[in-house]
Amino acid sequence: MIPPDHPRYRSLVTRELLARCAESGVVALEGLTAHGRGEAFDYLLGEKTTESALLAERTAAALLLNAQNPVISVNGNTAALAAAEIALLQKASGARVEVNLFHRTEERVAKIEDLLRNAGVEVFSGPAEQLLPLSHDRAWCRREGMYAADVVLVPLEDGDRAEVLVGMGKTVIAIDLNPLSRTARMATLAIVDELTRALPAIATACREISPEDRVRLVKKIDNHYFLSMAIHDMTLRLSHALD
Amino acid sequence: MIPPDHPRYRSLVTRELLARCAESGVVALEGLTAHGRGEAFDYLLGEKTTESALLAERTAAALLLNAQNPVISVNGNTAALAAAEIALLQKASGARVEVNLFHRTEERVAKIEDLLRNAGVEVFSGPAEQLLPLSHDRAWCRREGMYAADVVLVPLEDGDRAEVLVGMGKTVIAIDLNPLSRTARMATLAIVDELTRALPAIATACREISPEDRVRLVKKIDNHYFLSMAIHDMTLRLSHALD
Repeated sequence: MIPPDHPRYRSLVTRELLARCAESGVVALEGLTAHGRGEAFDYLLGEKTTESALLAERTAAALLLNAQNPVISVNGNTAALAAAEIALLQKASGARVEVNLFHRTEERVAKIEDLLRNAGVEVFSGPAEQLLPLSHDRAWCRREGMYAADVVLVPLEDGDRAEVLVGMGKTVIAIDLNPLSRTARMATLAIVDELTRALPAIATACREISPEDRVRLVKKIDNHYFLSMAIHDMTLRLSHALD
Repeated sequence: MIPPDHPRYRSLVTRELLARCAESGVVALEGLTAHGRGEAFDYLLGEKTTESALLAERTAAALLLNAQNPVISVNGNTAALAAAEIALLQKASGARVEVNLFHRTEERVAKIEDLLRNAGVEVFSGPAEQLLPLSHDRAWCRREGMYAADVVLVPLEDGDRAEVLVGMGKTVIAIDLNPLSRTARMATLAIVDELTRALPAIATACREISPEDRVRLVKKIDNHYFLSMAIHDMTLRLSHALD
């Protein structure tokens, strides 16, 4: 077992959790590699929510609360790492929660939906259709879910789903530790923060934000600013790493 | 299948290879996460061998050629990614190749040794003993292998094996894309470069290096310089990422 006083205890426990979820089929093997990439960028962030990330999280809350049909899209890694946090955010925001997978099988979808329900999430389920202009399995979503949504939160999304959703006229909020990723750059709003820090921060903001702030925050969203600040913080930390 | 014109083709193919090797038991699930971390740092390096990394690779060649008992320690990720390159380096350097695993079972050791032999590696095998001052499975190595070595090359090592080997008075060469890792900082010499670029570069240097350069390069090895340069290169690239 991992000793609790290990300097990287939390990180090692999370890795073990994901490995077990890969064995049970909830997490794709490719999801483990993706998690490792995120870990590296989070290390550069100092493994904490930066000031600009917190502003992005408050802006995300405003977008979700202003939306007509907000949808939170959940994949295997998100369910494995943050099912309880998804439940909290759903309660705070009123968003629909829908499972959408890159490596899609009906069995995996069912497993992940079960995991979410056990954590208190009300899952928007039912038959999916190939509605998105994406190849293969990634085209699947639900007509009254992601397809009808005006605001979509995609945590830990890989690939070009964000781009396609923006192309369909939707407001896309990404949670992505890599400020250079296509997802982060294509999103309407990128939150460069770790998932289990970001989701509760958005939920808290949903409860606390004033109506005036809701209007003010979404007025002009400057994604380039959020990405620049994240890169700035990482650069600063990296350049002092050997001091 | 992954289209060959995909901008991240090589990276995606490597991920698939590792996922298949995880299914067959050669690569540990934790190895997939470790690969992801490396990918992030390699991205910051521009996915190429930097000038300082090339100097580190030439220095590694000098260390291996000057050694009495050089040993290359191979784990699951290294075997999966670079068995042929290990064979090349063994021929060029005359080093023993020994399998040492963090997540050790006899079955995994045998599988990885088979994979290496099929790629042309002469594997130093036989019964291992718990000879290193490390807990659990990581203490295992062979008396005439790593235990007797004066110079050890540890590609993709995770954890504190590098520290222990240095403590035993050995010269430790690490190949590690993360210049901030404990392995990179504890090593006598850290090569901050991707494995399949680093190993052939060391092999080439073994063939080309002059006797004078062998003496000159190992005279005063400044690992802090190599780590600083890697961090400098990454910082520069990151700070211009959005330009």
